[in-house]
Amino acid sequence: MKKFLNSTDTLLEESLRGFALAHADIVRYCAEPHYIARIAPSRPGKVALISGGGSGHEPLHSGFVGFGMLDAACPGQVFTSPTPDQMLAAAQAVENGGGVLFIVKNYAGDVMNFEIAGEMLDCSHDSLLVHDDVSIPEHQGMGRRGIAGTTIVEKIVGAAAEAGADLAACKALGEKVVHATASMGVALTSCTVPALGKPTFDIADNEMEMGVGIHGERGRERKQLASASEIVDYLAAIIDEELRPARGQSVLLHVNGFGGTPLLELNLIYGLAYQYWSQRGVNVARSLVGNYTTSLDMAGCSLTLTLLDEEMLKLWDAPVHTAALRWGC
Amino acid sequence: MKKFLNSTDTLLEESLRGFALAHADIVRYCAEPHYIARIAPSRPGKVALISGGGSGHEPLHSGFVGFGMLDAACPGQVFTSPTPDQMLAAAQAVENGGGVLFIVKNYAGDVMNFEIAGEMLDCSHDSLLVHDDVSIPEHQGMGRRGIAGTTIVEKIVGAAAEAGADLAACKALGEKVVHATASMGVALTSCTVPALGKPTFDIADNEMEMGVGIHGERGRERKQLASASEIVDYLAAIIDEELRPARGQSVLLHVNGFGGTPLLELNLIYGLAYQYWSQRGVNVARSLVGNYTTSLDMAGCSLTLTLLDEEMLKLWDAPVHTAALRWGC
Repeated sequence: MKKFLNSTDTLLEESLRGFALAHADIVRYCAEPHYIARIAPSRPGKVALISGGGSGHEPLHSGFVGFGMLDAACPGQVFTSPTPDQMLAAAQAVENGGGVLFIVKNYAGDVMNFEIAGEMLDCSHDSLLVHDDVSIPEHQGMGRRGIAGTTIVEKIVGAAAEAGADLAACKALGEKVVHATASMGVALTSCTVPALGKPTFDIADNEMEMGVGIHGERGRERKQLASASEIVDYLAAIIDEELRPARGQSVLLHVNGFGGTPLLELNLIYGLAYQYWSQRGVNVARSLVGNYTTSLDMAGCSLTLTLLDEEMLKLWDAPVHTAALRWGC
Repeated sequence: MKKFLNSTDTLLEESLRGFALAHADIVRYCAEPHYIARIAPSRPGKVALISGGGSGHEPLHSGFVGFGMLDAACPGQVFTSPTPDQMLAAAQAVENGGGVLFIVKNYAGDVMNFEIAGEMLDCSHDSLLVHDDVSIPEHQGMGRRGIAGTTIVEKIVGAAAEAGADLAACKALGEKVVHATASMGVALTSCTVPALGKPTFDIADNEMEMGVGIHGERGRERKQLASASEIVDYLAAIIDEELRPARGQSVLLHVNGFGGTPLLELNLIYGLAYQYWSQRGVNVARSLVGNYTTSLDMAGCSLTLTLLDEEMLKLWDAPVHTAALRWGC
């Protein structure tokens, strides 16, 4: 394993300290228990949006803390759920009279711990579950995983909360965005978790994992490595089947890199996915291309499509000032 | 080799098309010859800033085209200099009465081709050479390479050009920034050039390449893999020796990922580098952490330090609206 670290025990804390130093105008870091919160207090009465999950997916979620998006993020150890005490401390630090909405990716540990934190919380609160990974049929097991669509949900709900939407309205909007969003990924290589020191899974030089999860979970099927056009057609067809965008429908198209794939290739993938939906008469109105929901050093990417209505489009365009997403501020 | 592509022959064009589609509000793509230019015309009389170089370093330079930074970028094939006809076509497209400043990373092919383009150009023009890589002693061979400090130069000179600085003033400012900037990188793995299909160099599991170039060129020395703190101390000491910042000096600290290193680790490196200079009484006033001057999928990073005066600080903070850097707009 070749990584920049001093010790796997201190990796997370050292990384969070560095992150907070690099973005001291936007966030602050609290060490015991770990959370990242906005440096500027929010408007009194604003709903506090808090997300979190295992680390190793940076910039998600800490990179999305700031004006127009999250109020706090709770990073667990690498690929490990954060603990209820982190969520509780973060909520108590940023709650400002509008209640708390937890934005939770659908993993058993995350769901359980945010639920426990909610029970301990002495203010109005609710949870929004993100489950955009359409690689898994909906009826299987724990349901669908939350993956790169989380960024879209956090941006749009974040803008609404900033504009004064109350807790119920934020949750309802969030559910609308989740319902309108579908993602699916492909891995070319595994990632390596620092504490394990070896690749999470084996994959041959001529194989790819279709529908991979953001922790390197096995996906829908393993296939022979194919051309970029074939890969995009495969992923896009499953997403398209799920969302069935009408001709003329406006959409946001997000190509998310898992960490180890160069932007040169992500831009190429974006062009092919844009073409896929354009040829079907869909209006690709907004884009996001880059590493937003990563899986450490895994090579691969996911496609995410969100069907936009006018409200969602306006909220997507609204000002945001975070480490990883910044416009209009 | 595992990459998202249809053919190595079409990779660059497909990638640039995708890039331009994803950022159609900022840039346009011209295919024959290849260049990326701003979609919005610049103010009449503004100096046109044009950069370029081999592809594989994205977002450099195409991701820096837009308000407050470059007017155009000329991407060569992967790790290959762009040709004079690209530079000439880009210059003719964006020149708007203020002349053209070519910003050139110090590589023999780039320098030669920008010089040829300049000779063919029928307007006032000049060149600014970036050579921030202090891994190589100054007196050796072709001089020092241009690496991640290029982003800092393009941002600061871009802001000055936007604010009305003329060609001579832009060049003089650029030389001041280059003089105030030093970088040095370390690689943990090689990158793989798509057209070659195999790693550029071999490196053992317990080795790292100190002073590596952004094309995987051998650096200053190969060492045993060390802790993150030891790596930062090694790189920072060489940069510090070069720039000799005084106590109280304001600096910009840029941690640049080469592509294959997770943000989790880059943030950790930033924290250690911040600490290195803070402990010496240096005021780390601004930061930039992320993948800006990449080397395809190489794991590794570089540190860049720029000594800031008030003019440079103000220009760094000035609004910028590009695909890869965006604030204040």
